[in-house]
Amino acid sequence: MRTSQTLISTLKETPADAEVISHRLMLRAGMIKKLASGLYTWMPLGLKVLRKVERIVREEMDAAGAIELLMPVVQPAELWQESGRWAQYGPELLRMHDRHTREFCLGPTHEEVITDIARNELSSYKQLPLNFYQIQTKFRDEIRPRFGVMRAREFTMKDAYSFHIDQASLEETYWVMHRAYSNVFDRLGLMYRPVEADTGSIGGSHSHEFHVLADSGEDDIAFSNESDFAANVELAEAVAPNIERPAPSQPMTELHTPGVKTIEDLATTQGIDPAQSVKTLIVAGAQEGDWIALVVRGDHRLNEIKAEKLPQVASPLRMAEEQDAIKVCGAGFGSIGPVGLSIPVVVDRAAAVLADFACGANKPNYHLTGVNWERDVTAAHIADLREVVEGDPSPDGKGILEIKRGIEVGHIFQLGQKYSEAMNAQVLDANGKAQTLSMGCYGIGISRIVAAAIEQNHDDKGIIWPDAMAPYQVAIVPLNMQKSEAVAQAAETLYAQLTDAGIEVLLDDRNERPGIKFADMELIGIPHRIVIGDRSLAEGQLEYKHRAAPDSENIAVTDTLTVLMSKLGLA
Amino acid sequence: MRTSQTLISTLKETPADAEVISHRLMLRAGMIKKLASGLYTWMPLGLKVLRKVERIVREEMDAAGAIELLMPVVQPAELWQESGRWAQYGPELLRMHDRHTREFCLGPTHEEVITDIARNELSSYKQLPLNFYQIQTKFRDEIRPRFGVMRAREFTMKDAYSFHIDQASLEETYWVMHRAYSNVFDRLGLMYRPVEADTGSIGGSHSHEFHVLADSGEDDIAFSNESDFAANVELAEAVAPNIERPAPSQPMTELHTPGVKTIEDLATTQGIDPAQSVKTLIVAGAQEGDWIALVVRGDHRLNEIKAEKLPQVASPLRMAEEQDAIKVCGAGFGSIGPVGLSIPVVVDRAAAVLADFACGANKPNYHLTGVNWERDVTAAHIADLREVVEGDPSPDGKGILEIKRGIEVGHIFQLGQKYSEAMNAQVLDANGKAQTLSMGCYGIGISRIVAAAIEQNHDDKGIIWPDAMAPYQVAIVPLNMQKSEAVAQAAETLYAQLTDAGIEVLLDDRNERPGIKFADMELIGIPHRIVIGDRSLAEGQLEYKHRAAPDSENIAVTDTLTVLMSKLGLA
Repeated sequence: MRTSQTLISTLKETPADAEVISHRLMLRAGMIKKLASGLYTWMPLGLKVLRKVERIVREEMDAAGAIELLMPVVQPAELWQESGRWAQYGPELLRMHDRHTREFCLGPTHEEVITDIARNELSSYKQLPLNFYQIQTKFRDEIRPRFGVMRAREFTMKDAYSFHIDQASLEETYWVMHRAYSNVFDRLGLMYRPVEADTGSIGGSHSHEFHVLADSGEDDIAFSNESDFAANVELAEAVAPNIERPAPSQPMTELHTPGVKTIEDLATTQGIDPAQSVKTLIVAGAQEGDWIALVVRGDHRLNEIKAEKLPQVASPLRMAEEQDAIKVCGAGFGSIGPVGLSIPVVVDRAAAVLADFACGANKPNYHLTGVNWERDVTAAHIADLREVVEGDPSPDGKGILEIKRGIEVGHIFQLGQKYSEAMNAQVLDANGKAQTLSMGCYGIGISRIVAAAIEQNHDDKGIIWPDAMAPYQVAIVPLNMQKSEAVAQAAETLYAQLTDAGIEVLLDDRNERPGIKFADMELIGIPHRIVIGDRSLAEGQLEYKHRAAPDSENIAVTDTLTVLMSKLGLA
Repeated sequence: MRTSQTLISTLKETPADAEVISHRLMLRAGMIKKLASGLYTWMPLGLKVLRKVERIVREEMDAAGAIELLMPVVQPAELWQESGRWAQYGPELLRMHDRHTREFCLGPTHEEVITDIARNELSSYKQLPLNFYQIQTKFRDEIRPRFGVMRAREFTMKDAYSFHIDQASLEETYWVMHRAYSNVFDRLGLMYRPVEADTGSIGGSHSHEFHVLADSGEDDIAFSNESDFAANVELAEAVAPNIERPAPSQPMTELHTPGVKTIEDLATTQGIDPAQSVKTLIVAGAQEGDWIALVVRGDHRLNEIKAEKLPQVASPLRMAEEQDAIKVCGAGFGSIGPVGLSIPVVVDRAAAVLADFACGANKPNYHLTGVNWERDVTAAHIADLREVVEGDPSPDGKGILEIKRGIEVGHIFQLGQKYSEAMNAQVLDANGKAQTLSMGCYGIGISRIVAAAIEQNHDDKGIIWPDAMAPYQVAIVPLNMQKSEAVAQAAETLYAQLTDAGIEVLLDDRNERPGIKFADMELIGIPHRIVIGDRSLAEGQLEYKHRAAPDSENIAVTDTLTVLMSKLGLA
């Protein structure tokens, strides 16, 4: 493509209402244009990227045996009433009625429609397993659309739905999808992690989120530096320290600590290492009226999801008000500790191996030091209560944990029989008996991936596309092409050569200053750039630069195709 | 693909509410499934066809220099209010409001959105011409959706919009699009005609509809048997007969014709050839209160669009009531003729060369025979008034006209400044002066093409896909594959060979009777079929049959790939 034959409309200014870097860069590079809140037109350059993601997703889904179909965007209310979601779904479901006042919605997801198809089309276990997918426009009426296509109202999803006679078959397809998703992100050239996710209220034994790692992500992901292990920080297990608790060496001593309310206060005023202290939190027990004390190390944070899963503790988790704490412990927040409490105490694994530690004395303005488990207070219940931190051992025993922020771009999920039961989707099993179908569902946010890739790959000049996602793989920037016949001819020859070799090239044939051309190509993020100028040409050379490299290198005109094929991994 | 790994769900029964053959066959072949009135899921087989049409359209649009983008399905009311169409568009425009009660619609077309983009992105004539297109989901809330995807509410369109500094540039792109559309339908392998269409109220000097020819079409298309000429019957010129009017040979004679009301009555009761008579119609004149008599040959039909364009005639055309005719002519319908009338008479070209013709006598129950122009009545105004009929000379002077029914699947159109003026879309011209953009628009009904192709290509067994549109080009039907190792092996070998050669093959590996497999492959319409059975295999032969051929032929196993490549036009 020549810049003169397409629309390059880059912006110098940073758009006012763009909060994240991908949104700013997509607007500045002319990849998207805002039509209304949360509604974007994919401009030619942006659409090329979107289509590349689509193609890779499609190829991997096909390779994994999934079958493509295309369901309508507009869905009748009746199916949603049948599944119960017409009432459950909030205002994110955009509802409307047609000219005959029949109710419809714009599909944010297609479980109902596909389950309706399955119950009509499938009659026997012999047809199973089947995995249907589509790549399609979805709509979610977000209360506050933001971050451009990262959280738009209209967006492109790949959603797949698999149907099975039993859980074993569902598990099998689930892991095939896990592999297919990994292939997709590998091929896209993105740093990502499949992350174990909470299966939440829907149940099913497995759920993974696929996160693209980027500083601007909304989720904290803990992953091993040596293995595939990755989990949302909220779900990652903090393994028990592989040490014996030291024997007590200090007497328990009461310390007057006026004004000390926090672990940090204790450290600054008394010089006590937070890792050598514990904090105690009072939460409602599973039995109405009961209270439970949870103890974690002073430098650790309680993980509320883990706490909530304890059998002793009320779910959802409810923290005690200060007056409750005073009633139960004899002191308010800041002076509570495990010693002498009459309520059950659950101790985190890391806190349980401390000796000679500090804690609140359950007496206003007093703390204890030299406290020891067993000698001074029992640690009958030990559990994993805290959030993991960087440097913790990986729960799979391999390596230590790193924590990075992630952007969720995919989610695979075992739905089980939630929809098939509500909508009575059954087939006959091998014994001729009707069985409710088991379902899996597997989503990838196609348009979101484009934004996430930019969040991960950019610098202050603009986007740095991985080769597989770049709108064009190579930019040819001829200098002074309008005046120099030699430059024009070299540019045209190279353009024809590369195009013939199946490489996507953008030839910047605009009559603009070099600085403007360089800035535009960098902003747009084309990974490989060839500059053709009279001076180097006289020496039979061109200038090559990778978008992410600090410097350019000279290559012989005659070697250009070979060098580029090799840089692109094509030769 | 193997039938065991996809979903083949054909129906024996003809679905009750499917009125046209394409709808019936698409449902029976399992290409589409109805979700709600006018809303269809494209099932795996159908989607493969849809994608092939999409791909060919995309390739031809790209080759024609059009640039792909993707606009949202959901559009804000504001833009439609600006163009004036929010008020003009009827209930086909599905309107809705979001959670903040802002008004939106589902786009039936995208002139407003693209014009908004153009006015924001384009500033100079140097950027022009530009032609943007998208392939996208559209919604039109038809009052009575019918004929399956032929007239669905949700459908897939390719719509393109070009922008120009002047009419000359618009004309140029218009003809590029005309060529691109012809390429698309040529490549799809469909019989079609680009048909001159009425430019109607929007103006612009050209408009063409692209019609796929099929008996079930809604429009009558007249086209030359020797040239490219084609026009909607309503618009085709009936050229003046290339003959001299014969000299009168009979006296004008009054004939008592009680009960004769029509030309057919005159023929049956009096033996008068309709082609030797004229009929006279009274219509309102351009001046309030005036009446005009229009005369066409007895075997011809008045073309109302042509009549309406006469300067003497009121527009829209208004036929006289019988009491008006009696007042003006002295007789009612069935007895009117041109002789002795006091109102202006306009005579069709074919009627004007008659001699010794018959007509009403303007006297109840009487006709005249042996009437001659000039001698008995003047034919001062001669015009093209009638609809063309088969056998008429083509207006371009080449060949004669055939008339066939057509299904409109494409429309190219010069919009001129209708939207750019309403929405103030301007650029600076070479003199630095603001100029309102000229626009063209170019649509193709992608999903409709699939149905139209079936209307044109089917028999009583099912669909007959042109190679370019077939979901699979070749079907391999092994007989008794589950029991015969030789058959299974030959089938697998051929499947691998063809797949490696880039041919799309459906291997029917189901454990079904041959009759069921044959019927399914015929219904689905796969153009090339290979049957593999033990008997022919023993002789080193396979059976080949083209879907449209009456009989099969034997080919040597060793020649199969070569033969198929040649049948597919690939070698």
